[in-house]
Amino acid sequence: MKFVTVKKMEEILVGLIDDGLEKILLIHKAEEAMKDQKTIPASMIDCIAAGEDFISKVKKLVDWVQSQEKPDSFYVSMDKVTVLAPIPRPAKNIFCVGKNYAEHAIELGSAADIPEHVMVFTKAPTTVTGPNNVVLNHQTVTDQLDYEGELAVVIGKKGRGIKREEALDYVFGYTIVNDVTARDLQSRHKQFFIGKSLDTTCPMGPWIVHKSMVDNPNHLNIETKVNGEVRQSANTNQFIFPVEEIISVLSAGMTLEPGDIIATGTPAGVGKGLKPPKFLKPGDKIEITVEKIGTLVNYVEG
Amino acid sequence: MKFVTVKKMEEILVGLIDDGLEKILLIHKAEEAMKDQKTIPASMIDCIAAGEDFISKVKKLVDWVQSQEKPDSFYVSMDKVTVLAPIPRPAKNIFCVGKNYAEHAIELGSAADIPEHVMVFTKAPTTVTGPNNVVLNHQTVTDQLDYEGELAVVIGKKGRGIKREEALDYVFGYTIVNDVTARDLQSRHKQFFIGKSLDTTCPMGPWIVHKSMVDNPNHLNIETKVNGEVRQSANTNQFIFPVEEIISVLSAGMTLEPGDIIATGTPAGVGKGLKPPKFLKPGDKIEITVEKIGTLVNYVEG
Repeated sequence: MKFVTVKKMEEILVGLIDDGLEKILLIHKAEEAMKDQKTIPASMIDCIAAGEDFISKVKKLVDWVQSQEKPDSFYVSMDKVTVLAPIPRPAKNIFCVGKNYAEHAIELGSAADIPEHVMVFTKAPTTVTGPNNVVLNHQTVTDQLDYEGELAVVIGKKGRGIKREEALDYVFGYTIVNDVTARDLQSRHKQFFIGKSLDTTCPMGPWIVHKSMVDNPNHLNIETKVNGEVRQSANTNQFIFPVEEIISVLSAGMTLEPGDIIATGTPAGVGKGLKPPKFLKPGDKIEITVEKIGTLVNYVEG
Repeated sequence: MKFVTVKKMEEILVGLIDDGLEKILLIHKAEEAMKDQKTIPASMIDCIAAGEDFISKVKKLVDWVQSQEKPDSFYVSMDKVTVLAPIPRPAKNIFCVGKNYAEHAIELGSAADIPEHVMVFTKAPTTVTGPNNVVLNHQTVTDQLDYEGELAVVIGKKGRGIKREEALDYVFGYTIVNDVTARDLQSRHKQFFIGKSLDTTCPMGPWIVHKSMVDNPNHLNIETKVNGEVRQSANTNQFIFPVEEIISVLSAGMTLEPGDIIATGTPAGVGKGLKPPKFLKPGDKIEITVEKIGTLVNYVEG
C-alpha cells in the first residue's frame, strides 16, 4: 500500500495509490460513499497515528470499492491532482542521521570522520516541499547548494526506550527525502542545522510505502541523478547504523511519535565530494530513486 | 504584560498575570463575560500569531474588567491553577544558540571554541515541560545531566530575510528556558541534538513577558542557582551574538513563524565547567532568574 497526500481543488486529501501508479483512491470520499460517514482521520499524520485500525479500514474500503459496479468511478487520475509531500507539515523537525555511509563520510573528510555513534541533526518543518516542486536556489545566502538522496522512515507508534529487536514495529512506512544542504553554511555554522534548514530544502515523497511492502529497509538500492547523470548509486545495506539501531538510539531518552520522520543519511556521490565539486545550479533536475519506494523528482529554482 | 498558559480542571487556558504576580485574568472567560462570545484565539500560539490585534483586545478587556463592580471576580488565584510551559507544545523544535557567551565556550573547551558565526542546534518539542515540574533523571542513558539557564525569545511574526535593524519587530516577547543537557551524549554523538533532546529537558516559563516590558533583551541579568547555590551569574550584554543578529542569521533563508522559540545560549558556570564538575543529582532544585522576566524553578526527578 502506497499512501499519498494530494490537493484537489482546495482540499487536502489522503489517497491510496493503485498498483499501476496511475490513479488514486481518495480514501475519505470513498468512505463517505460507503458509509455516509467518515471514521478515517483527515490528515496523513492522524491516519498514521490510528495505526492498524487505519490499515484495516482501508483494506475493507478497497474490498467494498472493488465490489461496486463501477470501481473506477471512485478513483481519480494522478494528473488531476497535485501531489504534496506525504506529510506536508510535520509536527516537529525532521530527524536526520549524518554520515551513515562510510564512503560519504570519507568523501567529505577522511576515514577519521566515520562516526562511531549515531549522529543526528534536524531540519525545520518549513523545509518540507512536495514532489516535482522547485527548491529555492537561495542565491543570496549560499553558493554551495547540494543534494542528498535518502531513504526516510516514518514512525507509526509512540515509544521511548525502543529495543533494536522491536524497532520495526514502531515504523509505519518509508518515503524518500532529498536532504538539500547549503555546504558553505553547514561548515560556517559548525552545528549542521542552519545549513540544513533553508526553506524548501526537504523535498519529500512522492508517497509513503507501508512497511508491509518493505521486508528489509536495510537492503534497498538507492540512486540519485542530476540532469540524468547518476551521482549516487548505493544500497542501504551499506548503512553504518541500520534503521533498527537509529530508532533505538534516538528513542533511548526521547519519545518518538506517529508521523515523526527520520532521514537515514546519504551515500557517497554528493556534489561537494566530486573532484571538482559540482554544486546545484538553477534549473537542475534531481531524481532520487529508492527500490520498492519510488522516485522523487525536484528542480532547482531557475 | 505577562502571559501564562494554565490548566484549570481539564481546560488549557491563556491568562494575563496581574502585576502582583498572585492572580491571573483568564482571558477567554473574561471575554465571554464581556461579549458573550470569544474572538481571542484559544491557544498561546494562536494568540501570538494574532499579534497586535491580540494585544489591543487584551487591553480593552482589562479596561472593561476594571470598570466592573467586582473586578476581582474575573481573576483566579495562581495557586488554584497549574501553570504549564507558556507554549506547552511548540509546532517545531526549539532553536538553541550554542556558545553565545565567550566564558562559557572557554569553560567547555578553550578560547579557540569561541564561535565566529552563530551556531544553532535544536531540541525536540517533546522536551518541553512547565515550571515547578520534574526533569526526568534519565539515569539509564546519562550520568552527566547538566543545567543551562537561558533567555528565550518568542517570535511574533512570520518572516524571512529579516534585517538586524527590524529584528525586534518580529519578537512577541521573552521567557526563560533551562536547556538541560546530557553532556556525555552531547560529546558522544558530535551533533548536539541527541544530548539536548531527552524528554522533559526543556523546562520553559513561567510566562511570556511581552516585548513592551523589555527595552533591551541584550542587557538583562541572568542567574542560575542549584539548591540555592549561585552557579551562573551574568548579563545578556555578554552575548557574542545579540538577539537581533540571531534572528537575522536564522531567518536569512529560513522562515521564522509566530510561536517559534529561540534559546539564546547559556553563560559560564554550567556543571561541566566546574572543577571538579558537578552534574545534576536526583532531587536537585534549579532556579533560573532573568531580570524583567521572572524565575523558572524545576526539580530533578528523585
